[in-house]
Amino acid sequence: MTPGILSVLPIFYVGWSDSVLSPSEMQTIQALIENLPHLTEEDKKLLQSWTDQRHPPNRETFAEWKHILQNHVAEIDLSARRNLTEIGLAMAQKASSLDWYAPEVREKIEDFEAIMGLDNASSALSFYRAIVPQNASELTEEADFDPRKLQTILDGPFAELKTRTKTLLLDEAFRVPTELRNKDELRLKILEQCRYLARQGFGSYAFPPEYGGSGSTGGSTAIFETLALGNLSLLIKYGVQFGLFGGAVFQLGTEQHHRLYLEKLGKLELAGCFAMTETGHGSNVRDLETTATYDHATRSLVIHSPTEAAGKEYIGNALHSRMAAVFCQLMVNGQNHGIHTVLVPLRDENHQTLAGITVKDNGYKMGLNGVDNGRIWFDNVRVPVKNLLNRYGSIDENGQYQSPIQNPSKRFFTMLGALVGGRVSVALGSNTAAKKALDIAIRYALKRRQFKTLSEDRETLLLDYPTHQERLFPLLAKSYALTFALETLRQKFVESAALDDKREVEALAAGLKSYASWHAIDTIQECREACGGKGYLAENELPDLKADTDIFATFEGDNHVLLQLLAKSILTDFKQEFSDGGFMAVARHILHRVNTEWLESNPFAARNTNAEHLLSAEFLGEALRYREQKLLFTLSDRLRSFLGKKLNPNEIFLRTQTHSIALAMAHVERFINDEFLAKLNSLPDSPEKTALQQMQQVFALDAIHRDRGWYLENDYLSSEKSKAIRKVLTKLYRQLRPQAQAYVQAFGIPAVLRNAEIVS
Amino acid sequence: MTPGILSVLPIFYVGWSDSVLSPSEMQTIQALIENLPHLTEEDKKLLQSWTDQRHPPNRETFAEWKHILQNHVAEIDLSARRNLTEIGLAMAQKASSLDWYAPEVREKIEDFEAIMGLDNASSALSFYRAIVPQNASELTEEADFDPRKLQTILDGPFAELKTRTKTLLLDEAFRVPTELRNKDELRLKILEQCRYLARQGFGSYAFPPEYGGSGSTGGSTAIFETLALGNLSLLIKYGVQFGLFGGAVFQLGTEQHHRLYLEKLGKLELAGCFAMTETGHGSNVRDLETTATYDHATRSLVIHSPTEAAGKEYIGNALHSRMAAVFCQLMVNGQNHGIHTVLVPLRDENHQTLAGITVKDNGYKMGLNGVDNGRIWFDNVRVPVKNLLNRYGSIDENGQYQSPIQNPSKRFFTMLGALVGGRVSVALGSNTAAKKALDIAIRYALKRRQFKTLSEDRETLLLDYPTHQERLFPLLAKSYALTFALETLRQKFVESAALDDKREVEALAAGLKSYASWHAIDTIQECREACGGKGYLAENELPDLKADTDIFATFEGDNHVLLQLLAKSILTDFKQEFSDGGFMAVARHILHRVNTEWLESNPFAARNTNAEHLLSAEFLGEALRYREQKLLFTLSDRLRSFLGKKLNPNEIFLRTQTHSIALAMAHVERFINDEFLAKLNSLPDSPEKTALQQMQQVFALDAIHRDRGWYLENDYLSSEKSKAIRKVLTKLYRQLRPQAQAYVQAFGIPAVLRNAEIVS
Repeated sequence: MTPGILSVLPIFYVGWSDSVLSPSEMQTIQALIENLPHLTEEDKKLLQSWTDQRHPPNRETFAEWKHILQNHVAEIDLSARRNLTEIGLAMAQKASSLDWYAPEVREKIEDFEAIMGLDNASSALSFYRAIVPQNASELTEEADFDPRKLQTILDGPFAELKTRTKTLLLDEAFRVPTELRNKDELRLKILEQCRYLARQGFGSYAFPPEYGGSGSTGGSTAIFETLALGNLSLLIKYGVQFGLFGGAVFQLGTEQHHRLYLEKLGKLELAGCFAMTETGHGSNVRDLETTATYDHATRSLVIHSPTEAAGKEYIGNALHSRMAAVFCQLMVNGQNHGIHTVLVPLRDENHQTLAGITVKDNGYKMGLNGVDNGRIWFDNVRVPVKNLLNRYGSIDENGQYQSPIQNPSKRFFTMLGALVGGRVSVALGSNTAAKKALDIAIRYALKRRQFKTLSEDRETLLLDYPTHQERLFPLLAKSYALTFALETLRQKFVESAALDDKREVEALAAGLKSYASWHAIDTIQECREACGGKGYLAENELPDLKADTDIFATFEGDNHVLLQLLAKSILTDFKQEFSDGGFMAVARHILHRVNTEWLESNPFAARNTNAEHLLSAEFLGEALRYREQKLLFTLSDRLRSFLGKKLNPNEIFLRTQTHSIALAMAHVERFINDEFLAKLNSLPDSPEKTALQQMQQVFALDAIHRDRGWYLENDYLSSEKSKAIRKVLTKLYRQLRPQAQAYVQAFGIPAVLRNAEIVS
Repeated sequence: MTPGILSVLPIFYVGWSDSVLSPSEMQTIQALIENLPHLTEEDKKLLQSWTDQRHPPNRETFAEWKHILQNHVAEIDLSARRNLTEIGLAMAQKASSLDWYAPEVREKIEDFEAIMGLDNASSALSFYRAIVPQNASELTEEADFDPRKLQTILDGPFAELKTRTKTLLLDEAFRVPTELRNKDELRLKILEQCRYLARQGFGSYAFPPEYGGSGSTGGSTAIFETLALGNLSLLIKYGVQFGLFGGAVFQLGTEQHHRLYLEKLGKLELAGCFAMTETGHGSNVRDLETTATYDHATRSLVIHSPTEAAGKEYIGNALHSRMAAVFCQLMVNGQNHGIHTVLVPLRDENHQTLAGITVKDNGYKMGLNGVDNGRIWFDNVRVPVKNLLNRYGSIDENGQYQSPIQNPSKRFFTMLGALVGGRVSVALGSNTAAKKALDIAIRYALKRRQFKTLSEDRETLLLDYPTHQERLFPLLAKSYALTFALETLRQKFVESAALDDKREVEALAAGLKSYASWHAIDTIQECREACGGKGYLAENELPDLKADTDIFATFEGDNHVLLQLLAKSILTDFKQEFSDGGFMAVARHILHRVNTEWLESNPFAARNTNAEHLLSAEFLGEALRYREQKLLFTLSDRLRSFLGKKLNPNEIFLRTQTHSIALAMAHVERFINDEFLAKLNSLPDSPEKTALQQMQQVFALDAIHRDRGWYLENDYLSSEKSKAIRKVLTKLYRQLRPQAQAYVQAFGIPAVLRNAEIVS
């Protein structure tokens, strides 16, 4: 690389992670580059090619820049440099005999720096953090594997986009001061940050290119997954605006709506909200009370909240939105056609609430106080019929209701299925949050010492206590395991775009969302406690992480309700059309399956206690599969018996609810383990593969150990074998102990985003 | 009651829960009473007797007033009354032919009301809440028992004081607006509220009467227990000022200190803090780094923080205090005499920090943001030697160290033992917080419906879902069970005042504090989730309850560390003096016990599955006892075997850590169950006794069920029996379902203190 390029490379490197310049500013920059001293024509041509905002440098280019910068920075004294210009000039001077410190050179480059908005200490700091290898001396423990290689495997197909998202988050603009506790101020800050994301093209990522997007729903979930490393209010605000509101317009609307709204909402020029949940009805969406009554004379829909409890509840973005995607019962000619979605303007250009609309702030919440949740009521609000998002149901010129799906129940589930992206995203974001907590707690446990023992000079590291290992390692393994299962979920989600019937991915998303969100809640709680008093201080991130993620168990579907949904889908053949018949039909269906498919499936000796056997993919896979099958069999059996006794369906449902949830959880753990094993099978032998294998072993063996009551009850394990499992686990933890830091390093979480003083 | 008394009774009733009047104001009131129209001499005499602030009306009087007021209020139309005067006059008018509405009467009584500070809407509101039976229609479900009678049993010996504390908390002065999130404003509010408590004599309650107290440590814990129904920042601030700082002066100081400080600090005229924990040493108090070096020439102690990590950390009241009780290594003539406590002035009369003192705010925390936690460093701060709290160690005129306890280790533990009240209090407060969460979640589950089933007209109540019962009822039973175990703990704590060796109560407090604080954390989390999105809103209390109690698992001793402490004490004979030898000595001691005391103690058939057997006190008690004994035996056995292999003590300690914690938890659950059974045995037969018995059955059977893995591994349960337990529990929950509301009513939590919109 030439000295000329070097002189401005720091500015480009930092600048591109914050390129929120307008086209006219870009023109100014391009003109400026032409006039920079000491630059060759070739230098200028290269630099111009880097200023095309729509085609930012890709990951490889960034990596190359970083590599070059790291090499050159190592040769200069950074401590004396005030800004990016000085760093660039010092590097150029080292590499050339021209006078790079001459005022006319310096001034021009400083102008450039200023126009890029980088003439401040925080930009220099961003540069430091990104380039100077702060973790050079970090690896005090000797790991058997290379965490960077492991990270590549964990990052998967969207690695580049994830890195780009992380780089962006490192920008000073995304800091939220710990002291910022006032909800109104916080909300403004988050709104501003959300605009930055939109300017980066992150808002429209899932939309087709003709609407300013990248056409990648998978990429969109990868952005969400990675944004969970930053402020979670921003994550949820982003999810509400682009994923929920945008998703409703994109998935439930047709071309007319896409043309009118997608680009604008993707840029956050049109702020919108997703008004589904009501005070009276959350989990039970089908019975929402809000109505949209068609008036043929005026070709309009009248949106109305008939009761106080029909008000839309917890609606994110409610205070900043100009429009709402309102879920309501569509009444045409006196007939209810079930839940449909209508775009309803909430506020005018001056942000004044429109007539008939009432919005109330939900006030302070446990967390996510940067998100403006509120309640919304409609008092006979009239909108043109074209505002009906009409992909699955429309009203023709003659005022007749039309739908490509005749069966109302199927239509309802198809519409909900189109919105499955939300659950996929929450599942992914949950695991990111859990990883961040583990990164903090494990690093702290490798730093913090307490209690001296007679035989040692120094106090003992927290992570050397077996109880500390037992508390954290199974959670670490769960986060590893979830990573691959969630990658499969993402893939199925992307593939499902082409399918009308999305029940398979819906069921999977329901299960994994529940499992991952509880995993996040449990993990953050354990990590908080494992960090003691330090874990209680806001400066160490865990408090906000805990408060912000707590609602993940509730929103996008309450976990208990979702698990029953999953159980229902396990119990039935998806293709079978009994969605109308409810639980009774499911039960009847089961009658025909049971006993024909069931095989006694416990071929492994209940008494084999050697470690090799206990850690084998065969034993672990089979044990998890056995539990799922047995629970399915016994549930079917109970259903049959209850039906035989002529119990009413409600009673049957209630009596088997706990059993259903156990089945769903067993299904999810079996699935996660299978995906982990499949991933392992796809990898060539390497130290990293071995490292992953150990995580798989901990995950599966701990799952069995936690549920050993069930396994013992069902004679799948003998007492001896159950006790042996505990011993094998303890030994495994001891083995993993020296690798702990490398395992969390492989999560690839920049220190700035950990945002915790105790491990900074 | 005469009309005259009636006319002012509302003012007295509300007023006495907010009697923060100065003696001179009291005189004004007494004069005013003399001049009230229509009052007989007898009336006046009675009223005067009610104005003695040091002898407030007792519980019976209050109950009588309430009874009278309820009767009379029922006969007047309350809706038109603006203030307490109007209510009183209306009642008097009903009962008499005199003209009570005459201006001269009304004005005089309104003056009285104004002087009492009650001439505002909120006082009228307080009256409404306390007197008007809001829950008249509450008991929709038919309970088999009277919740008020059950409450009397739960409230126990300090019922009156608890009622007084609750009544006080109802006062408007103790409201904290949900919107108040700024820590500095919140801290001021809490400080002010803490002063109210002090004015009520609550600050000095544990101190002897000669220092303005009531001389009741038990009462003091009952106040703490009840204050946990209110704002938890206030609770902790109260605990820090009066329990920790006050407790240090009272327990570790001698008469000279009591005389100088107790009365002042009990009135909060002297704010102080308890500076024990350091950044580098929290759990390991013995190795604190702060030093107090004696200088004989000036008869002074030099307090010093030798390192950054020696700074005192998380110190509550750090910003409001004028003085700190500092725990430090006492150095006399170059010799370290171990941890002692020295009173060190922090600030002058103008609240300016003194020379050598550095205080830093800990900033925002997960919760308890109304408590001013901070860090404190000392740079060679000199204080007179009399500031040494010298009950257990002093420096004589000749500069020689003197102590009534020669063994330094024993001295250390004796000093810490003197402070056990903190752990007792946290255990009690934890259970109160758990009860409050259960009260909210169970009431909400009896109100909230979701999902209609085919066979029913209305949607189903949340509490009718078996999973919902399974989530909440075992936690309800734990709170019931803990109530009696904690009452025993309180009693032992009170009795231990006379003992030098407090190890028994210390061990018990360590175990119950851990168990109760985790119970609170788990319960509040479950209740939050069980209330769905509503549980996430600050207006419904659960978010703050969760955030504020989270640290209960850490402060006053990290739960994991405390449980090991308990395990150690179970393993050893308390009277044996091997505290110096550390773990090795404990292990050796065990060698001599093992195998001689052990008896095969599983006399109950592992296969008896009938419900009567499973619910019997014999089976439940024996199963819990068996687990403890077996864990003790196997732990001893492992220790012996490790010693035989000549493993070093550190290695042995680490290898048995998990086992120790399991033993401690088993011990605690066995103890709780035993105390519950003892309580039941002491009660005559009644519907309330039956209600309690069912709670005991759920508590114990659920404990066994949760740990069925262990019981099955140890062949104490057969598969069949283990499965039968699940069935019996499910059936028990169904039986309890109609009693659920009565069970939480018996907690006696006023609606105002529940502070949750969803159940208000």
